[in-house]
Amino acid sequence: MITSTSNTRIKNVRQLLKSAAARKAQKSFVVEGPRMFFEVPPGMIREVYLTEDFEANHLERLRPYRYELISDGVCRSLSDTRTPQGILAVVGMTGHSLEELLQSEDSPAFVILEHIQDPGNIGTILRTAEAAGITGIILSRDCADIYSPKVIRSTMGAVFRIPFLVADDFDEMISKLKDAGVTLFGAHLSGEIYYAYDYRKPCAFLIGNEGNGLRPRTAALADELVRIPMEGQTESLNAGVAASLIMYEVLRQRKWGA
Amino acid sequence: MITSTSNTRIKNVRQLLKSAAARKAQKSFVVEGPRMFFEVPPGMIREVYLTEDFEANHLERLRPYRYELISDGVCRSLSDTRTPQGILAVVGMTGHSLEELLQSEDSPAFVILEHIQDPGNIGTILRTAEAAGITGIILSRDCADIYSPKVIRSTMGAVFRIPFLVADDFDEMISKLKDAGVTLFGAHLSGEIYYAYDYRKPCAFLIGNEGNGLRPRTAALADELVRIPMEGQTESLNAGVAASLIMYEVLRQRKWGA
Repeated sequence: MITSTSNTRIKNVRQLLKSAAARKAQKSFVVEGPRMFFEVPPGMIREVYLTEDFEANHLERLRPYRYELISDGVCRSLSDTRTPQGILAVVGMTGHSLEELLQSEDSPAFVILEHIQDPGNIGTILRTAEAAGITGIILSRDCADIYSPKVIRSTMGAVFRIPFLVADDFDEMISKLKDAGVTLFGAHLSGEIYYAYDYRKPCAFLIGNEGNGLRPRTAALADELVRIPMEGQTESLNAGVAASLIMYEVLRQRKWGA
Repeated sequence: MITSTSNTRIKNVRQLLKSAAARKAQKSFVVEGPRMFFEVPPGMIREVYLTEDFEANHLERLRPYRYELISDGVCRSLSDTRTPQGILAVVGMTGHSLEELLQSEDSPAFVILEHIQDPGNIGTILRTAEAAGITGIILSRDCADIYSPKVIRSTMGAVFRIPFLVADDFDEMISKLKDAGVTLFGAHLSGEIYYAYDYRKPCAFLIGNEGNGLRPRTAALADELVRIPMEGQTESLNAGVAASLIMYEVLRQRKWGA
């Protein structure tokens, strides 16, 4: 059992929890708690740490896994949440290429996030995207780190199931989508109402920053701008809500007709 | 200028920021930052505290207000956020009765929140409700406090514009709605798909707790259960997203036809 919080591997787990740079360098991230852990595809798991209590309470479900015991103190020292849940795993990142995403379906539907900064919004968007049958999520490099503990938690497991990629070159990614015949819709206050278009053909939706929306040069790349109607004095919707409304319009048209 | 963090009134502001019980006893709450402050209807404002820097930067907009100067140290000691924004106001609660809500429109549409615990979800729901033209929000007593700083912030001002009430007696509130001819829809995994109903008549939507959904006895009170379709392995949606999808279906039917 690991009982020292300064054990080299434990220190590394702490690094992976805290630092996006460490996660990127090691191409791995940390998953905490039984709910998330048991969602991880076993092939992605690199290290598993759990307490004796956790082991005793989950003997049956743990049978297929190799793991290392840690003391309660070590577990507490690692926990990103107020109530440590007894289990942490180091998980390898799985990369998807745009080419893979484009091959995965007859009529793909993508969501492209530009400069989304709230981890909770990114998590919510991944969670809703899976529910709405979206093909994949593409993030600009200046979005919050998708592998941060808060994003991982708020996806409720969707992060292991819906393909996503971080676009190193945003403009190149847009060009490739256009070349593949994907229509680009930008969420924008000056757009047409979002019910007005047919989303059954290949499409992608650009969603901009929480405070500022899409950058003008990004909005200019869109084939069409779409707007969510708003009553009252509301100036904008939460980015997770706006993306969710659009994604569910895609599902509605594709499953139940326009 | 108030320079002491132990000034009686400053201590009271701190209490109002921290304690739901204090807010309830004094029927007032705290609003922080210029963005929220300038949204508060002036009649609701009881006390205003701001720094000299803030005063210098907002002289024009502050002209109609009475306020008291505080030192930067006092401001920092009060701030609920990492970066103090130079202004805090004590604001009186405005109560709405169910009777008022029922009189406010020809065909009302309500959202009823049962045991929603995440302040961010409540804030998002209020914000989207205003945008979707919802008549009012009703909260069960065991929801997170709507006057907590985090809820206030995440409503983006909607808390001052959309009527809401906390139902002291949940069952009585439900009976009154039914007596008024309001159809009650409960969001529930075993319901009919939510596009299937006509929401142009008076209606109310019961939205349950993040983890557990509606309590069985509450679901049994609904006239109809409605379900949001989900693809993939998703077990549920974020409560704010689920409520938003339903509220926008109401807007769509009412403004653009079913």
